[in-house]
Amino acid sequence: MLRFSQNAKSMRSSEIRELLSIAVRPDMISFAGGMPNNDLFPVQELDDIYSRLSKAEKQVGFQYGPTPGHPPLLKSLAQFLQGKGLPVEENRLMITTGSLQAINLLTKVFIDPGEKVITEDPCFIGAITAFKSYQAHFCPVDLDEDGIILHKLEKTLARHADARLLYLTLNFHNPAGLIYSMERRQAILELLHHRSLVLIEDDAYNDLYFSEADREKTTPLKAMGKEPVPICYVGSFSKIFGPGMRLGWILAPDAIVKQCELAKQSMDACTSTFTQMLAHEFLSQKKLAEYLPYIRMAYQRRCRIMLEALQQHMPASVIWNRPIGGFYVWLKLPQGVDATEVLQKSLAEGAVFVVGKTFDPHGHRNDHIRLAFCHTPEDKIAEGIRIVSQAVGSFV
Amino acid sequence: MLRFSQNAKSMRSSEIRELLSIAVRPDMISFAGGMPNNDLFPVQELDDIYSRLSKAEKQVGFQYGPTPGHPPLLKSLAQFLQGKGLPVEENRLMITTGSLQAINLLTKVFIDPGEKVITEDPCFIGAITAFKSYQAHFCPVDLDEDGIILHKLEKTLARHADARLLYLTLNFHNPAGLIYSMERRQAILELLHHRSLVLIEDDAYNDLYFSEADREKTTPLKAMGKEPVPICYVGSFSKIFGPGMRLGWILAPDAIVKQCELAKQSMDACTSTFTQMLAHEFLSQKKLAEYLPYIRMAYQRRCRIMLEALQQHMPASVIWNRPIGGFYVWLKLPQGVDATEVLQKSLAEGAVFVVGKTFDPHGHRNDHIRLAFCHTPEDKIAEGIRIVSQAVGSFV
Repeated sequence: MLRFSQNAKSMRSSEIRELLSIAVRPDMISFAGGMPNNDLFPVQELDDIYSRLSKAEKQVGFQYGPTPGHPPLLKSLAQFLQGKGLPVEENRLMITTGSLQAINLLTKVFIDPGEKVITEDPCFIGAITAFKSYQAHFCPVDLDEDGIILHKLEKTLARHADARLLYLTLNFHNPAGLIYSMERRQAILELLHHRSLVLIEDDAYNDLYFSEADREKTTPLKAMGKEPVPICYVGSFSKIFGPGMRLGWILAPDAIVKQCELAKQSMDACTSTFTQMLAHEFLSQKKLAEYLPYIRMAYQRRCRIMLEALQQHMPASVIWNRPIGGFYVWLKLPQGVDATEVLQKSLAEGAVFVVGKTFDPHGHRNDHIRLAFCHTPEDKIAEGIRIVSQAVGSFV
Repeated sequence: MLRFSQNAKSMRSSEIRELLSIAVRPDMISFAGGMPNNDLFPVQELDDIYSRLSKAEKQVGFQYGPTPGHPPLLKSLAQFLQGKGLPVEENRLMITTGSLQAINLLTKVFIDPGEKVITEDPCFIGAITAFKSYQAHFCPVDLDEDGIILHKLEKTLARHADARLLYLTLNFHNPAGLIYSMERRQAILELLHHRSLVLIEDDAYNDLYFSEADREKTTPLKAMGKEPVPICYVGSFSKIFGPGMRLGWILAPDAIVKQCELAKQSMDACTSTFTQMLAHEFLSQKKLAEYLPYIRMAYQRRCRIMLEALQQHMPASVIWNRPIGGFYVWLKLPQGVDATEVLQKSLAEGAVFVVGKTFDPHGHRNDHIRLAFCHTPEDKIAEGIRIVSQAVGSFV
């Protein structure tokens, strides 16, 4: 008989990965995957980048790199983040194997078994799995349309003064699709004065506002000029280049990133030099700057089609957000309707999505569904929403 | 004041990474890095692979893949491993972000703080850092020229019957450069009967024998037809394609790999699809089969030059192995000579290597030095060995 570790026993499967095997079936309309659509990837730009790499550069791409990251990428990424007003000079930057590894590393260096993490409820499933894999204790706090609910956060901070981490996603939240208001951002910073925890600010969707006019609404907490607690700013190339490159980053105070580097030395030594090199060229040749407006428009269009279809088909007792960026619409089902039952009906008719309890740190609450519009061909969205709406309707 | 986790406090830095920043100085002859030389990487083959990828394939490369690995690579790798006599059908295969991640995942799912790992002494520094990062307790066992010393292993197994893992590198050991004899392999399997631990067999150097005649000497324990304890066979593309691709694998019983997949879901979700795709083409287009004889010859040449120079320059009281594969010569210094003092003298004259205590799980024993011949231009090896020999000689 195999005996596994306590860490292993506390792990939780990301159910989304199982759903995705259903989602790729050609007869299925999928709102499940929170990933960019294959059609949108910058293939032409990649060809262009590859064709200009010298033999010596390719050789470097084959080789190990420094644990904190490929030096040219660290430089171009620093410049990119400085453009967002982030305090790059006063902090330390490191590249990670996707932003999930960033969250995992921070958990590894801060959390002992049973220690507390304050999260949003709902919360990004990847972060939940990472926290669970180190036996963290969850203290979830509800959201309203402007972000985490302040008085509930205040109460949780008071009751769990020994919490080690606070994990927040302010821009285009996964799964809730919302963006924190500026007032909420300010208020959170004030609430955090004299606390002893560390804030992980996950900003994987930062660049995915639909309209340039909304850009300033995405200002990270880490760029607001005061840091009442250490802020570990975590980001990703997955939504702006490609998740298959497995590139993310941490920008955080020196002592924290040094400890994360040590942890990464024992986890995968370094992130792929080859994909880091490609990302560096994508940034430094200003290809990202040209690519972003293109994908913003594409996601905005998909979102609009989805919202129109929801308006048309969904029972009146269902409530949802109207995203101004990101990938997600988050539907609150009518009282007493269970998301898993809706999913089963919907699957039978050919549409798939992710149920709410997936994003509940405790895995119970199941009165929401997450509809991702990022991955669905435009001409399939309305039909898929009709199926999901009918499935919901059958329980109302 | 930041408070880090117990895991963080138990981490150990891989000193090699610091040495490597010295090693790249153009005035320095380096025997430090245990990595392939840039000149040897299959750049032409990569160009050829890239030029034949379709747009749709590149799009897949940009995308998330399944946690266990890119399906085409899993298939071509399975075939490659079957060619080595490994029981692929009876086990489960998964791709990892380098073989270090494979070791890290296995440690995560098997080791609770304070639990015991039996290792070789000396031992691969990457494995030491991974074990330490989960607060493992080390039980090191000495090596002789045929591998781990049987009566010492037997005693350790008896004294530490509660040990959870045994970690062995049978082929072209890092740092000891040796290959286990067939008798030793058989005897280890017999010793393991009725034990309750799990064996990690690290075979990163399996393909790097110099002479085709020695191929059968590399037969893995996992391919010997009996498995007295579960064997987790760990391998890597780092030495046969390029470490910058960050690709390794685990072949192990189903229940173990499933648990590792769950751990990987929380660590980096999946390994880069893009680099997995390149490795798949490298395998399936038979490019690896053509490339291996080329690098075997190159390493054999470098090794011969190093051995000749050692014969010529090194004091008679120094002992070393004569590798028939891999990357390393492991020198035993004369009684009372400290490797770090030799290194300081050698650095001042322009040659760098790694001191023995780096590979001691307890970090003390410093009577050896590791000379890697893999990374040094042929015309620099003799001069570098002269410098190292002189440094040793000054203490004799």
